[in-house]
Amino acid sequence: MNTNVSVRSEKDLLGYRDIPNQFYFGVQTLRAIENFNLTHSKISNHPNFIIALAMVKQACAQANHKLGKLSEEKYQAIEFACQQLINGHYHDQFPIDMLQGGAGTSTNMNANEVIANVALEHMGFAKGEYKHLHPNNDVNMSQSTNDVYPTAIRVGLLLSLKGLQTAFATLIQAFSNKAVEFKDVLKMGRTQLQDAVPMTLGQEFAAFATTLKKDLDKINAISPDMLGYVNLGGTAIGTGINTEAAYAPYAISALAAITKENIQAAPDFVEATSDMGDFVLFSGLLKRTATKLSKIANDLRLLSSGPRTGLNEINLEPRQPGSSIMPGKVNPVIPEAVNLASFQVIANDLAVTLAADAGQLQLNAMEPLIAFKLFESIDLLAKAMLMFTDKCINTVTANPEHCKNLVENSIGIVTALNPYLGYENTTRIAKTANVENRNVLDLIRAEKLLSEEQLSEILAIENMIQPKASA
Amino acid sequence: MNTNVSVRSEKDLLGYRDIPNQFYFGVQTLRAIENFNLTHSKISNHPNFIIALAMVKQACAQANHKLGKLSEEKYQAIEFACQQLINGHYHDQFPIDMLQGGAGTSTNMNANEVIANVALEHMGFAKGEYKHLHPNNDVNMSQSTNDVYPTAIRVGLLLSLKGLQTAFATLIQAFSNKAVEFKDVLKMGRTQLQDAVPMTLGQEFAAFATTLKKDLDKINAISPDMLGYVNLGGTAIGTGINTEAAYAPYAISALAAITKENIQAAPDFVEATSDMGDFVLFSGLLKRTATKLSKIANDLRLLSSGPRTGLNEINLEPRQPGSSIMPGKVNPVIPEAVNLASFQVIANDLAVTLAADAGQLQLNAMEPLIAFKLFESIDLLAKAMLMFTDKCINTVTANPEHCKNLVENSIGIVTALNPYLGYENTTRIAKTANVENRNVLDLIRAEKLLSEEQLSEILAIENMIQPKASA
Amino acid sequence: MNTNVSVRSEKDLLGYRDIPNQFYFGVQTLRAIENFNLTHSKISNHPNFIIALAMVKQACAQANHKLGKLSEEKYQAIEFACQQLINGHYHDQFPIDMLQGGAGTSTNMNANEVIANVALEHMGFAKGEYKHLHPNNDVNMSQSTNDVYPTAIRVGLLLSLKGLQTAFATLIQAFSNKAVEFKDVLKMGRTQLQDAVPMTLGQEFAAFATTLKKDLDKINAISPDMLGYVNLGGTAIGTGINTEAAYAPYAISALAAITKENIQAAPDFVEATSDMGDFVLFSGLLKRTATKLSKIANDLRLLSSGPRTGLNEINLEPRQPGSSIMPGKVNPVIPEAVNLASFQVIANDLAVTLAADAGQLQLNAMEPLIAFKLFESIDLLAKAMLMFTDKCINTVTANPEHCKNLVENSIGIVTALNPYLGYENTTRIAKTANVENRNVLDLIRAEKLLSEEQLSEILAIENMIQPKASA
Amino acid sequence: MNTNVSVRSEKDLLGYRDIPNQFYFGVQTLRAIENFNLTHSKISNHPNFIIALAMVKQACAQANHKLGKLSEEKYQAIEFACQQLINGHYHDQFPIDMLQGGAGTSTNMNANEVIANVALEHMGFAKGEYKHLHPNNDVNMSQSTNDVYPTAIRVGLLLSLKGLQTAFATLIQAFSNKAVEFKDVLKMGRTQLQDAVPMTLGQEFAAFATTLKKDLDKINAISPDMLGYVNLGGTAIGTGINTEAAYAPYAISALAAITKENIQAAPDFVEATSDMGDFVLFSGLLKRTATKLSKIANDLRLLSSGPRTGLNEINLEPRQPGSSIMPGKVNPVIPEAVNLASFQVIANDLAVTLAADAGQLQLNAMEPLIAFKLFESIDLLAKAMLMFTDKCINTVTANPEHCKNLVENSIGIVTALNPYLGYENTTRIAKTANVENRNVLDLIRAEKLLSEEQLSEILAIENMIQPKASA
Repeated sequence: MNTNVSVRSEKDLLGYRDIPNQFYFGVQTLRAIENFNLTHSKISNHPNFIIALAMVKQACAQANHKLGKLSEEKYQAIEFACQQLINGHYHDQFPIDMLQGGAGTSTNMNANEVIANVALEHMGFAKGEYKHLHPNNDVNMSQSTNDVYPTAIRVGLLLSLKGLQTAFATLIQAFSNKAVEFKDVLKMGRTQLQDAVPMTLGQEFAAFATTLKKDLDKINAISPDMLGYVNLGGTAIGTGINTEAAYAPYAISALAAITKENIQAAPDFVEATSDMGDFVLFSGLLKRTATKLSKIANDLRLLSSGPRTGLNEINLEPRQPGSSIMPGKVNPVIPEAVNLASFQVIANDLAVTLAADAGQLQLNAMEPLIAFKLFESIDLLAKAMLMFTDKCINTVTANPEHCKNLVENSIGIVTALNPYLGYENTTRIAKTANVENRNVLDLIRAEKLLSEEQLSEILAIENMIQPKASA
Repeated sequence: MNTNVSVRSEKDLLGYRDIPNQFYFGVQTLRAIENFNLTHSKISNHPNFIIALAMVKQACAQANHKLGKLSEEKYQAIEFACQQLINGHYHDQFPIDMLQGGAGTSTNMNANEVIANVALEHMGFAKGEYKHLHPNNDVNMSQSTNDVYPTAIRVGLLLSLKGLQTAFATLIQAFSNKAVEFKDVLKMGRTQLQDAVPMTLGQEFAAFATTLKKDLDKINAISPDMLGYVNLGGTAIGTGINTEAAYAPYAISALAAITKENIQAAPDFVEATSDMGDFVLFSGLLKRTATKLSKIANDLRLLSSGPRTGLNEINLEPRQPGSSIMPGKVNPVIPEAVNLASFQVIANDLAVTLAADAGQLQLNAMEPLIAFKLFESIDLLAKAMLMFTDKCINTVTANPEHCKNLVENSIGIVTALNPYLGYENTTRIAKTANVENRNVLDLIRAEKLLSEEQLSEILAIENMIQPKASA
Repeated sequence: MNTNVSVRSEKDLLGYRDIPNQFYFGVQTLRAIENFNLTHSKISNHPNFIIALAMVKQACAQANHKLGKLSEEKYQAIEFACQQLINGHYHDQFPIDMLQGGAGTSTNMNANEVIANVALEHMGFAKGEYKHLHPNNDVNMSQSTNDVYPTAIRVGLLLSLKGLQTAFATLIQAFSNKAVEFKDVLKMGRTQLQDAVPMTLGQEFAAFATTLKKDLDKINAISPDMLGYVNLGGTAIGTGINTEAAYAPYAISALAAITKENIQAAPDFVEATSDMGDFVLFSGLLKRTATKLSKIANDLRLLSSGPRTGLNEINLEPRQPGSSIMPGKVNPVIPEAVNLASFQVIANDLAVTLAADAGQLQLNAMEPLIAFKLFESIDLLAKAMLMFTDKCINTVTANPEHCKNLVENSIGIVTALNPYLGYENTTRIAKTANVENRNVLDLIRAEKLLSEEQLSEILAIENMIQPKASA
Repeated sequence: MNTNVSVRSEKDLLGYRDIPNQFYFGVQTLRAIENFNLTHSKISNHPNFIIALAMVKQACAQANHKLGKLSEEKYQAIEFACQQLINGHYHDQFPIDMLQGGAGTSTNMNANEVIANVALEHMGFAKGEYKHLHPNNDVNMSQSTNDVYPTAIRVGLLLSLKGLQTAFATLIQAFSNKAVEFKDVLKMGRTQLQDAVPMTLGQEFAAFATTLKKDLDKINAISPDMLGYVNLGGTAIGTGINTEAAYAPYAISALAAITKENIQAAPDFVEATSDMGDFVLFSGLLKRTATKLSKIANDLRLLSSGPRTGLNEINLEPRQPGSSIMPGKVNPVIPEAVNLASFQVIANDLAVTLAADAGQLQLNAMEPLIAFKLFESIDLLAKAMLMFTDKCINTVTANPEHCKNLVENSIGIVTALNPYLGYENTTRIAKTANVENRNVLDLIRAEKLLSEEQLSEILAIENMIQPKASA
């Protein structure tokens, strides 16, 4: 470090270290920065996590103050500092790697130190004058990383969920709009990539909207409640050592008020301190959405394949030249990126699972990876959905003539004749049409199996794309 | 085949084949047996799946009969045959590999053929006389594999769920019993495998009960509703081709009545025909439980480690000699098997995910793997839980003296002094105790930091294993 | 048990148990059968594993005999019994679940007991008269499960590898045959599912052969050496306790002779006793092949899609009717089953990884899952390859006319003009052709950008499907 | 953008865009920046990838120049620009997200544009004056993303491998040093977490060195050859369209010379263009190492557990205070971070697998995710190894007295008596010792089963931690 830099000296279990005065973090954060330098993802990349930490610290300060353990002055200063973080300030003071050992202690101490120093300055003291307000004794009062950290992850995920919900709604609306736009585009449905029976392109896009809507509904139904149960007040191992009985209820109801979320006490703090089950299931919900997005992206790539040697039923707006060698080529780059984002989320789910499986006794030391990957997944899904909407779905167009030609030329319409001619009869006709490359209707007419009237009734579009009206 | 075997000739799209008369399945099942011979797991290994198929077939027959499409005689015969399957008969007539191509068509046709032939015999005809009752035209009337097969998977999983719920309840009760038995066994809690603060062994076992109870509650809350939405009546691609409008509601309400489950119509049959999202999430629920069982098994192996060179806080009843070379060695074989079962379920979740991700357009052709792995996982978890209960948890005993000695000799109890002496002071004492291998209380006394009265108040067990009563 | 069954009494650490006299296994096997009942896969389903166990036991007996520790008579009897197992007899005496706790002790004792009793009968004694030949003291002499079991897994995998190699060679040959057959079928290549540039169908099928050949070569190059290093003689934890120095070299060279494989001593027996790295990498090799098979299956499903509304470049022979409702529909059931088998192998790789990751200190207690999944994967891949060859690849046919029409109608051929007209010029033409739905060559001609001579030279097939001969 | 910023106008298939003049990248890079904004990882975070791209571009320019297709002037300018990138300049001009659609086209065009503009300035022209040197026509001459991009990934991984190899060697040396240091520390070995037989701590640490050395050897043996086969010259789909026959050999030998690696032509360019098998296997190698690092980290955490209520055989140097609430607590934060890094690498392997599985026909559009995750994994493993060495292994100390006490108090030493007293006898003694909490040797002496002489011979350390010298 530049020798001209103004420094302060701070001390911890391991001894003294100089901290440049410009930094609001202290000695424990410094050690974590030095210990962990593994990825490009820092706590500061995850603002909702920092905001959540501040909300938790503020709630605890309120409870401590209410119980008479924290003076009015200290309480006010801590609250001021927390509000600063909640309002987006000082986030650059969280430079520790998200991939960190220590079960989140470094993250918690980073918050304690920054809040202490912001508070100290607000009180008129210099950074580091911890005798007036101490990161551990005051900011972390009645707390342990082991209750504060998982609680903050939960609150942070609830905050991030809002962005995901907005992205979901946006993409669902885009598919719904297209479903209306394409409601009269008749096309062949395909099962196992083989010609099946007719449907409309509108039905196909409506299904994309439906399937995502089901996920959004499920996430809305499950997540807030599931993520809302916290172990705040359990301190080190869930037994609540160093707290008094009223503390946890005070802190939790303060947190509910601050976050405006339905935060409640977990039924068993010892269990809640080490259990990662809610995170595994939440990750499973995100993975479920990822598999759907990936399937939709695959479908759009199939339907837009060609243009001349593929299915060519729809057109994706060109977003960039598709090839450095093949002129005029345009590729489905946005759905491809959606596939990649989905694969990343699926892989993140494995990381979460591995970490959850590795918990031991009263704590899961691997929790920082769970936090890292969940914040990454939720953010990635939201960004991918908005990209998908804006750069792809909103501008999809159909090729209705081509779609119609494919239907008329298909063999699959014999299915509609099945109830009239029987499975064996229609099988024979389908086989002949295929082998002799002939038109199904021509064969039916040649055999005089049905009158023209019957045929036009049976093959009316409205009779093929939905159940027939009951007599 | 032995030339003396009595055979009948059956025909399908690919031509004629001889079927030994002893078999109730027909030509399409025969082809599937020949095509797929990949694993040791057959449909017949999964009775709930066969029962579910029969329930679906029966429901469809009721609807067809009600709509006047299926004669009273045929309907009665089909119903009789379905009841036979539901009652556990003819399951050996389902010899096809669970790992099969064709999106379940072979399984559906296996059911159609067996039901047709059982029904034919009931009607007084010989097997194979399909002119009197046809597997496709009658048993499969108004149906497609694409609606029948996923509906049967859902019903089958709901049936299997009952076994899992029982196993859950049994294991939870075992942990709860031990929580009561061990409620006065004081021991050290450990975080990150390092000495933390005291707790009771009862709290530790109660947490095992709690964490599984949360899973059971979540499965109960989510699964029945989630698995209960079916696409029955959607036929080939969800458009309901070859049905009339009243059919789906009739069939679905019949299925609800037969299964006594809350079966309802999916909101969008086109979506429901290809979507695997519910199976992904259900698998995610099972995986969540697997990670918890694995963590509990790991904890029990840690706590029973030794006996002389490990933690040795609890004893697992010997189930078998532990070594072919080390006399007297006993290993935690039951928790180990729980770990392995858990890993299998986690790996199955990946298989389900890969299959779900591979759906294309109007169908997911990989559905048979999803069915295979979900039935395997649910069954494996249930068996593992019962084994865990019966052969391990019920007979766990504690070593209370050893546990108590470890607490008294620990450094971690300084945490309780933290609020009285401050973080820096107690840190110094802890460090000294560790480096000089001394007892924490001796150091406190030597420094006269607290009176004996204060010490005994602070270190009272009831003050260390729970929050202090608020003043 | 039926009271008439003749039984013998056997004793172990846990006490006495009756064993029906018909069984060659003894009390420890009985306990394992009772302890583990989790899957449908038994040791007896994996004959190569049993053969490998017998080979290892035989090798150890030879070494013990050579060192004067095992009498001639006992040695001859053990050797006889091992040969019986190697020749396929008594495999039904291995009824324990492959998914077992105990790090393989049950499997090892199953082998010890069966060999002892077969040997006893050969010596003229009754089963269970262990004073004449003891499962532990004689059959397991100088051995521990911890060296015998992983050694047997390695030998068993080497044996199973032969079947996989044959399956590989068969499938590769099938693709190579088709590559020759299709060498003149001109078609469009596709990248990102969009029209790219021309190639032949022969080139496409040759690539399938190449890619699998690379895997076979890699497996051949890596596996025998990698799997050949054993810890036999390391006994309990690799220190070789209870052996003398000459034992391990004797036993290992005996095993090399019996197996005719290049079996060698691992460089560090302590490491080799707990390390699962070779199994992880071997599983990775199998997974690599699975991803390739899955990709090839996907390609064949795409190329055969339609017939009327898909790519329709090739035809897969029908293997079974494709639908219970859509007459005449034929689906790519064999490639689909290949996909499913591949997904299973990929999921098994995760199970292997989870188990490998869970090793602790001097042993990996999760080894039975690794054995289970590796034997399953290698077997499944071999069966899937033979099914693929026999029921799909050998009978694939091409639609050359359709392929040719697609090329002539494509835009992608402008790429060949790129070096002559420049990227921007050809981009403009491609765009016009696409937007105005026109033929590329017509546009070139209309603009008189190239003479007919130049065009026919540039677009000659031989100039488009390979580099131009250098001047 | 600020209106005062000096801009140039560039054009592509989609039309004109303004590019601020400060940027060396052009319009296609700009579109990619706008299209993909999903993660915090940019191409510029992976310098070896940029260097590799430049090396490939330089090699192609050499081949084109040699074949008379690229003028001396242009060639010199391109070579200059490539050298600039190789020397670490202009890396900030690669701001595109690593997670991108388009199969790498954006990355390739980013390189083409930056090289063109650096070259143009070197030639005395302004950026964007592409008529003098064109990103596509000149820099990308005879190339396609589809051969350049995978080739650059391979070269980039070979470059990154050097860093990994160094990290491996460093960590292996650290374990070897400790193996020597701890060679006389006698301790109990443990299998399945139960007391087994004695060994030395030196043997335990030597095994850590061995197991990593095996991986390093395997990576050295397999990777360079495997990654060295490139499809450069295959252009769009491997058929080499728009190249002449001499081009590929020239380009590949130039690349070998520039990289000083054994770069060779893949045997089948069509296959090599779409195949991801080498990347899957390379990822499998990295995953294998990850499982080993994770296992070692777990072992160190177990061995250092306590200090008072755990195994406490070794001490890890404190790196930071371990708790915000428990004074004096020190946690194994470095091994924990190694666990997390390992889990990340295992999860990345799944992402690579998912992407590899998703290839279609002549290309794998998911390649960018494969590149992203492989560069991340290789980098993360190297950093984790150096952290592990420097902040943990180098300063591990042993507690030899405690280790020795555990051995003397153990039951496991009866194993050494097994060959003398038989399995059943020693089993009985072990059981008694355990149940009555007595010392094994006392029991032997009480029963006078062996003389003191025999006992001291049998239990001599040198006889327990290695095979006995053969007579």
